[in-house]
Amino acid sequence: EVQAAAEKLKEAEILAYGKPEGGRIKRILGNHVLEYDCSHKIPVWVAQHLTASSLKGEADRRFSEFRSDPQIPPMFSAQNADYRGSGWSRGHMAPAGDNKLSQDAMNNTFYLSNILPQDIQNNGGFWNRMEIYCRDLTKSFDDVWVTSGPLFLPTKGEDGKKSVTYQVIGENEVSVPSHLYKVIIAKKNDQLVTGSFVVPNKPIGYSHHLKEFQVPMEYVEKKAGVRFHSSLERSQAENLCEVTGCNMMTKAELDQYIFLRRLRRANNLKKLEKIWKEIQEKEVPINAALTEVYQKYSVEFAKAQTCPVDQKQEP
Amino acid sequence: EVQAAAEKLKEAEILAYGKPEGGRIKRILGNHVLEYDCSHKIPVWVAQHLTASSLKGEADRRFSEFRSDPQIPPMFSAQNADYRGSGWSRGHMAPAGDNKLSQDAMNNTFYLSNILPQDIQNNGGFWNRMEIYCRDLTKSFDDVWVTSGPLFLPTKGEDGKKSVTYQVIGENEVSVPSHLYKVIIAKKNDQLVTGSFVVPNKPIGYSHHLKEFQVPMEYVEKKAGVRFHSSLERSQAENLCEVTGCNMMTKAELDQYIFLRRLRRANNLKKLEKIWKEIQEKEVPINAALTEVYQKYSVEFAKAQTCPVDQKQEP
Ligand SMILES: [Mg+2]
Ligand SMILES: [Mg+2]
Repeated sequence: EVQAAAEKLKEAEILAYGKPEGGRIKRILGNHVLEYDCSHKIPVWVAQHLTASSLKGEADRRFSEFRSDPQIPPMFSAQNADYRGSGWSRGHMAPAGDNKLSQDAMNNTFYLSNILPQDIQNNGGFWNRMEIYCRDLTKSFDDVWVTSGPLFLPTKGEDGKKSVTYQVIGENEVSVPSHLYKVIIAKKNDQLVTGSFVVPNKPIGYSHHLKEFQVPMEYVEKKAGVRFHSSLERSQAENLCEVTGCNMMTKAELDQYIFLRRLRRANNLKKLEKIWKEIQEKEVPINAALTEVYQKYSVEFAKAQTCPVDQKQEP
Repeated sequence: EVQAAAEKLKEAEILAYGKPEGGRIKRILGNHVLEYDCSHKIPVWVAQHLTASSLKGEADRRFSEFRSDPQIPPMFSAQNADYRGSGWSRGHMAPAGDNKLSQDAMNNTFYLSNILPQDIQNNGGFWNRMEIYCRDLTKSFDDVWVTSGPLFLPTKGEDGKKSVTYQVIGENEVSVPSHLYKVIIAKKNDQLVTGSFVVPNKPIGYSHHLKEFQVPMEYVEKKAGVRFHSSLERSQAENLCEVTGCNMMTKAELDQYIFLRRLRRANNLKKLEKIWKEIQEKEVPINAALTEVYQKYSVEFAKAQTCPVDQKQEP
């Protein structure tokens, strides 16, 4: 109509040398969709859809490398060098572990557009357990949607004034968020459940339950400045923690999980024995899965030693 | 093509309950274009185009009122109450004074989408002089483009780490930027000049020259996370301060400017005399313009007193 045309003209006159570019950049990356913040040099939100079958596969993070997203203009991109020596780990928002189905999709999660500076203990601990909890939801729900991202939350000073403080790291001054959020939707037939969580970007011990960090979805939205799932009938959705209990892996279970993965990656007897010793030293409760992999690999490596590969290959 | 279609499908699957909304909202508002940040509750950038003729007119800010922008969702909008009692003034990015041509356009500059928490002395002082400087550029250039906005800049702590700290005000936690920027382009025939400036959001005295705050346009862009004027041939543009000197109004000139406006707004002899007394008390150098308005209004108001309006109106 006339007003729209007039607006276009006015806009063209005011932005005569080109519309501002950058700001927020949307990326559709194989198995996740994200919006990147060119000022903070980290994502605003990263969205995923998980199902039991989408989590299967053999892709391996050892073949992936952190690198700048080629679709983010260099002037707005974080670099690996920004993180190096900063004391902050490169924390995935869409986890590598959700992308075993495709090495390409997994590699995409290592683009720095999906990464933010995360406390290393949080990354390997509480947040890792949250990620595993989300994957495990696919055992009881057909569809799981997870949106993850950073928040910069204020604290109240002694003078009663509220202020936000965050570190920036490296040449490109990558912002270190004070908090991280996850907004979760799970669906099975007619049952729909949602749960939103905000956790501080620091170590969180095993004494804390996930429920302690639950917040209304609207709280995350207001702080992030983004409205999620606008077509979701929120009043129809049940509370994720009431339905599932929101129980994450215990320390023993996480240790078993991590050491099982490490045992599976051992490629010789010496490494296998070293990991097995570590399991005992750390007093990880030895379960059937650990025992089975250890015994199976021990036999295989022992065979390989008495019958070396180069001998076997001879005709 | 195939890849684009596959991406669309993937996106629809991942964002099954609706694409995230909000984030950054673009507004085309009569005489300025802006992008609003739903997280900070202030604009990211506000763009204008000024010409000598566009600055004429009789619109008056006394008919305008600060109010929330009706096109910003309430959950992401600042409110007047956020600013009340905060100690921060409501600072225009597109100045009201650039919109005398249309009362509607002027009213639009009072939407809080064009406003940020600004130090009151900066607002009425240095920033005001920068705004007047931009208007005055239309006397020597045919076209002037001005883009204004906030920055959140880090400082280096004693430990060598860089961090950003900013206050947030009110229920809606409106962010108080540490700095403000203006990116200016001016054009006359084939001559193109540009200048970019970053000033702290605090009082800046008359001892400081505008040149002290000049920065490369790329500096503003990198910090704001926005690329401006992508079709501008930057290498073809001259330095605004080298061409014009970047001399802003002196204190005497600004006082004269402000008091001339106040004299013109006086609507009775008592108010006129009060302002005139203040001019003398503040030792504002009295120039021809001040004298002329004072004398003209004195005569008019004196006439009105001896011949009251209600008598004149009788048949
Ligand atoms: Mg991680
Ligand atoms: Mg102002």
